[in-house]
Amino acid sequence: MTIVTLSTDFGLKDGNVGVMKGVIWGIAPTVQISDLSHLIGAQNIMEGALILGRSAPYFPEETIHIMVVDPGVGTDRRPIAARLGSQYFVGPDNGLCTLMLERAEKNGEPVEIIHLNNPRYWLPVISDVFHGRDIFSPTAAYLANGVPLSELGSPVQDPVRLELPRPTPTPHGYLAQLIYIDSFGNLVTNLQREDLPEDGDVALHIQGLELRGLVRTFGDRPIGDLVILYGSTGSLIVSEVNGSAAARLGAKVGDPVEVIVKRKT
Amino acid sequence: MTIVTLSTDFGLKDGNVGVMKGVIWGIAPTVQISDLSHLIGAQNIMEGALILGRSAPYFPEETIHIMVVDPGVGTDRRPIAARLGSQYFVGPDNGLCTLMLERAEKNGEPVEIIHLNNPRYWLPVISDVFHGRDIFSPTAAYLANGVPLSELGSPVQDPVRLELPRPTPTPHGYLAQLIYIDSFGNLVTNLQREDLPEDGDVALHIQGLELRGLVRTFGDRPIGDLVILYGSTGSLIVSEVNGSAAARLGAKVGDPVEVIVKRKT
Amino acid sequence: MTIVTLSTDFGLKDGNVGVMKGVIWGIAPTVQISDLSHLIGAQNIMEGALILGRSAPYFPEETIHIMVVDPGVGTDRRPIAARLGSQYFVGPDNGLCTLMLERAEKNGEPVEIIHLNNPRYWLPVISDVFHGRDIFSPTAAYLANGVPLSELGSPVQDPVRLELPRPTPTPHGYLAQLIYIDSFGNLVTNLQREDLPEDGDVALHIQGLELRGLVRTFGDRPIGDLVILYGSTGSLIVSEVNGSAAARLGAKVGDPVEVIVKRKT
Repeated sequence: MTIVTLSTDFGLKDGNVGVMKGVIWGIAPTVQISDLSHLIGAQNIMEGALILGRSAPYFPEETIHIMVVDPGVGTDRRPIAARLGSQYFVGPDNGLCTLMLERAEKNGEPVEIIHLNNPRYWLPVISDVFHGRDIFSPTAAYLANGVPLSELGSPVQDPVRLELPRPTPTPHGYLAQLIYIDSFGNLVTNLQREDLPEDGDVALHIQGLELRGLVRTFGDRPIGDLVILYGSTGSLIVSEVNGSAAARLGAKVGDPVEVIVKRKT
Repeated sequence: MTIVTLSTDFGLKDGNVGVMKGVIWGIAPTVQISDLSHLIGAQNIMEGALILGRSAPYFPEETIHIMVVDPGVGTDRRPIAARLGSQYFVGPDNGLCTLMLERAEKNGEPVEIIHLNNPRYWLPVISDVFHGRDIFSPTAAYLANGVPLSELGSPVQDPVRLELPRPTPTPHGYLAQLIYIDSFGNLVTNLQREDLPEDGDVALHIQGLELRGLVRTFGDRPIGDLVILYGSTGSLIVSEVNGSAAARLGAKVGDPVEVIVKRKT
Repeated sequence: MTIVTLSTDFGLKDGNVGVMKGVIWGIAPTVQISDLSHLIGAQNIMEGALILGRSAPYFPEETIHIMVVDPGVGTDRRPIAARLGSQYFVGPDNGLCTLMLERAEKNGEPVEIIHLNNPRYWLPVISDVFHGRDIFSPTAAYLANGVPLSELGSPVQDPVRLELPRPTPTPHGYLAQLIYIDSFGNLVTNLQREDLPEDGDVALHIQGLELRGLVRTFGDRPIGDLVILYGSTGSLIVSEVNGSAAARLGAKVGDPVEVIVKRKT
């Protein structure tokens, strides 16, 4: 049974997410549909790409991820569908699939991207403002039904890619930045576990504060302590035990953090 | 496979939406359930009717829409189920299905409305305050299982209808109003594409501002511009490109807008 | 077809709820998954236990409830799975299942609790911070697939139990408290229908106000009235008709209320 995930910046009030499910099930009645997030910041392509990038690996092979953060809907930005490794992406060609694409390329897995220009697989009437309903949902449903990717349009060689913020190496470690703040108020940096020494002997500087030494999990320290640890997908994060580091520090995406590695790997 | 949609003013915290799914799947284990909206304003029947009216057409035939915005729960307001065209509505008789009903009538499609007064198709114990769980969910599940509508109760000839706000024609166009504000802050008016000339040569007055000329989609203008265009279900809307027209203008539902048609259709 | 419910304090933005569904469907592709609540207050185990306790009875037998409110994740707090009556609970051993457990014990139904220490039924890689994804979701999926509880680990005899706030009898009735505030702003007390006389001749004192006489449902009184009635699961609640008693009174969980019973049962 195929899984389709839905992610948008639509919010949960207007009914548009439900409508997409109606369209999908109208074409492919037995697919399982999982909401990933509909609270992506309006027009925030980078945030969407990060949420999809960290979530996709936990879904089975052949999962089809629809993502609609689409400020260019109805303009000449291309609607695309793509096989990226063992899964599919369907959405606008604006960089939302950058992390899935980079992972597939890095692993030497299949990459095939199609410009959705065959209206046979769209709804009969196409609006200029809701391709999530009119193009992306039917496309995902037909893919789930076994229509080959190549049927849906013409090959794309130059997909749009986001410029992801990378940490800068320094003599003592890295100049990194906050790339996401989660629902608990944890501050997610762009450093990963593999960038840092295994013994966790690091210090992180944020807003003039120094946080020393990685902990393994929140409960390793008393409530209210600021700690650094690896989040569930391996990112270095700053957390307040049972609290919100974001609220405590007034931190926001883009803020710099410096990481000092005591003994560099 | 039958689809059931759920819409309520319950919010997403208390577990009551999940409970409705439990009741439905307990009776009809294979139906697909799609949330439409659970963020309808508390007791806001008009808002519920609008969300359902614009969403229902995108669901397949035989879809069953449960909607629970029900300030009269437990009083003598009737619980109803209805065939309205090719789909079903289940909920309180307070006008929530007005747009679905009007569309079916206008299209000359079947309309059959039933007062749910046969307790055989309810939960064994009925609370006075949660008919969504005790009456509407089991009703929808039995309908999905093939129980005929007529089994569920007695015919209703006089369903409650909402008085929907209609635009008033003027010598130069229409006096219209805002009937909904969506998650992006777009302002939805009660004018539709078919009310206005095809060449889009119109001007909209709101709060002393004049917005001239329909655009086709958001990206036709620079970020921050206020534009007028047709939304995804054909309503004339006021939008700020990549922003919130609602926040920019402090607009709210009920606010008047005047539309000047340059050459009336 | 088995139902799995998901409840967490994760919020709806980060994608983690969707990831749990991906893990579950990867192992058990046909289960139905119902979100119960993902807006439980961060680390608020009591609130989670109350939401689960009031919702679980409306789900079919064999339903598997996953609940992740888990400030102790990755510490020595045990991950558990339990048969509690006719349903299952999967989550941390921190009291979240207290109400389900007490109900099963009270009814003389089966109780079997297992410490999840057999990694064969986990994801291959286990993080220290997201057991919802790595342990609880696969556990629920294997249970749905028919793996016996006893396969998943070793028996637990001393599950953690929450100290639930109980009303104190007084010469005239009860000293009770607010234990939950729902999305409508209704104030839920820890008194139940069976604690009070059938004729509803009671008075409730809150913040110096006296509310006299139970109504049957909201619509029994004019809009804006403060009323007392039984909520959908039998709790005595304070409500403002078509309004928010919480906003009106500035009430919060833990606030005391006194109930005067005119003629005690």
